[in-house]
Amino acid sequence: MANRQPAAIAPQSILDGDRLALARLLTQVENEAPEGQAALNALFPHTGRAHLIGVTGAPGTGKSSLVNRLARYYRQPEDGAAPRRVAVVAVDPTSPFTGGAILGDRVRMRDLSGDPGVFIRSMASRGSLGGLAASTGGFVQALDAAGFEVILVETVGVGQAEVDIARLAHTTLVVEAPGLGDDIQAIKAGILEIADILVINKADRPGVESAERALRGALQLAHPTRREFHHHGLMDNANQPAPTSENPSMWTPPLLRTVATEGTGIPELGEAIETHRRHLQESGDWERREQTRLQSELEARIQAALLERWRANLPEAVYRKILQALLERKVSPYEAVRRLVNGD
Amino acid sequence: MANRQPAAIAPQSILDGDRLALARLLTQVENEAPEGQAALNALFPHTGRAHLIGVTGAPGTGKSSLVNRLARYYRQPEDGAAPRRVAVVAVDPTSPFTGGAILGDRVRMRDLSGDPGVFIRSMASRGSLGGLAASTGGFVQALDAAGFEVILVETVGVGQAEVDIARLAHTTLVVEAPGLGDDIQAIKAGILEIADILVINKADRPGVESAERALRGALQLAHPTRREFHHHGLMDNANQPAPTSENPSMWTPPLLRTVATEGTGIPELGEAIETHRRHLQESGDWERREQTRLQSELEARIQAALLERWRANLPEAVYRKILQALLERKVSPYEAVRRLVNGD
Repeated sequence: MANRQPAAIAPQSILDGDRLALARLLTQVENEAPEGQAALNALFPHTGRAHLIGVTGAPGTGKSSLVNRLARYYRQPEDGAAPRRVAVVAVDPTSPFTGGAILGDRVRMRDLSGDPGVFIRSMASRGSLGGLAASTGGFVQALDAAGFEVILVETVGVGQAEVDIARLAHTTLVVEAPGLGDDIQAIKAGILEIADILVINKADRPGVESAERALRGALQLAHPTRREFHHHGLMDNANQPAPTSENPSMWTPPLLRTVATEGTGIPELGEAIETHRRHLQESGDWERREQTRLQSELEARIQAALLERWRANLPEAVYRKILQALLERKVSPYEAVRRLVNGD
Repeated sequence: MANRQPAAIAPQSILDGDRLALARLLTQVENEAPEGQAALNALFPHTGRAHLIGVTGAPGTGKSSLVNRLARYYRQPEDGAAPRRVAVVAVDPTSPFTGGAILGDRVRMRDLSGDPGVFIRSMASRGSLGGLAASTGGFVQALDAAGFEVILVETVGVGQAEVDIARLAHTTLVVEAPGLGDDIQAIKAGILEIADILVINKADRPGVESAERALRGALQLAHPTRREFHHHGLMDNANQPAPTSENPSMWTPPLLRTVATEGTGIPELGEAIETHRRHLQESGDWERREQTRLQSELEARIQAALLERWRANLPEAVYRKILQALLERKVSPYEAVRRLVNGD
């Protein structure tokens, strides 16, 4: 135990903006260390201020460059507004932020890395089922408590867990690019429906017109009216304020063109994000999305806690015996669960 | 209830090769219907014969075409062997098998669809956390019981759940293509380590030499020796035969070039898959992989059952009250779980 890194992170050091303490806390969260959990626990009342922006799309759409440009935009607003503190969390294993960058990407990222108002972190772990979502939730809370006003979460828009992470942001950007193989990937993957803002990046490439046409058509199908932010909770309807006619919460996702590598369209995208933020706050959707995200995190943690409690109470010999019968196909998985959980 | 489709699928109809019954059963499994579970339960002793082949890779690598060609290869073996019954399960939402096909793809798929020895099915549902993996497991059991000797499971190689599905196959193919954006996606996504066979598809494209060089280099790093099929079980070490020196189970993943659209390299790929199958059976790895997959399914089901039992016992008012305190940030998620699960 002597070589372990110092266990406890003082919550105050996070609130004071100590970057080294923050980096250590994120590592603890990623490793699901109890010390990290204790710190998050203490920091929780200091969260709830940051604007979470999910950025998702297939590999090759240039979403990492887009995230990079957006981060720079918030650091150097063109309209004379005050710079905002920005964190970037790359959940996408194909993201250059995650370390697989070619040289050009790394150089571009370096613009940001000397700036104390910017914090960049990738999530390395694939982790357990649901571990990705849980770690991301913890990351966001730590960064929020550390005073980052904008948190950009980049995920690859093709995996189930990854799409769920983007979906739980306040504002979800779905990034597309023309000419990426056979077809518009976002349409095929069915992620258009989670888009608050749709971005066609690499818009200087051939095929942008037809890509935009395809996306506009698909958008109309996906958003006949604006989706309500729907969530199947653990308890039926336990906390879902039903959409009412007084609260229609209509939002038509705008479609924007960008060329992230040149910065084209970034101010317009920044404005669209700001418009969406105001919409969320005026309609009450901001609060609803906060609720949904917290509820979702709670449910994931409940599952983990139930499992831990069950495991602690079950003699290993019993588990082994039933597992062996399963492996010999003498009992089915269904029957094995009945015996293991319901204790027959 | 009058309009529901007939509930019970007779297990014997699946064993007898009734395609309509099989299609209905798969729908029930996908919808997590209890009737489907009952049928799977009865079919379970008839499973364990099929060779599961996971095919994973980024969108644009042409893995759907590769799956199509492999299916045809098994139906019309060139070496005069008997045709094998083949099922294709497309978990990839961007797969043409899933319905987002352009015309050319659909035409190619049609070669297979008239053949009673072929069954093609996509998984539409994103489902709940872990739902994707659970449904895939059920699909594979149903198809296995129905007598399909080869089951090709196509997943997109960038999502956590999707990679896990491919990883749990007997033989995992990781598909790559030259010139797909900035870099080799499989290296960035870290999925090389799950490859039993590495395929560079679209090998008639420029850049194939450098792609192969990059992959060979990465393979050597990823496989300094062959990975043991490692699994973190619910119970520590409950069923993991430790790798021993008597059982080194060495397998060096071969790297093959294909041009799936033209059928180039498909017989060689089929032979490599067959060589891997023999390796698995001779080394005992076949049995170990079966065990790992069943154990993984068992664990997912245990989690679901624990949650269901907990939910049935907790008064909704209690849940609501703690959830409300969480939303007001008066209690942290950690504290909320402590109260909800540990009943303080």
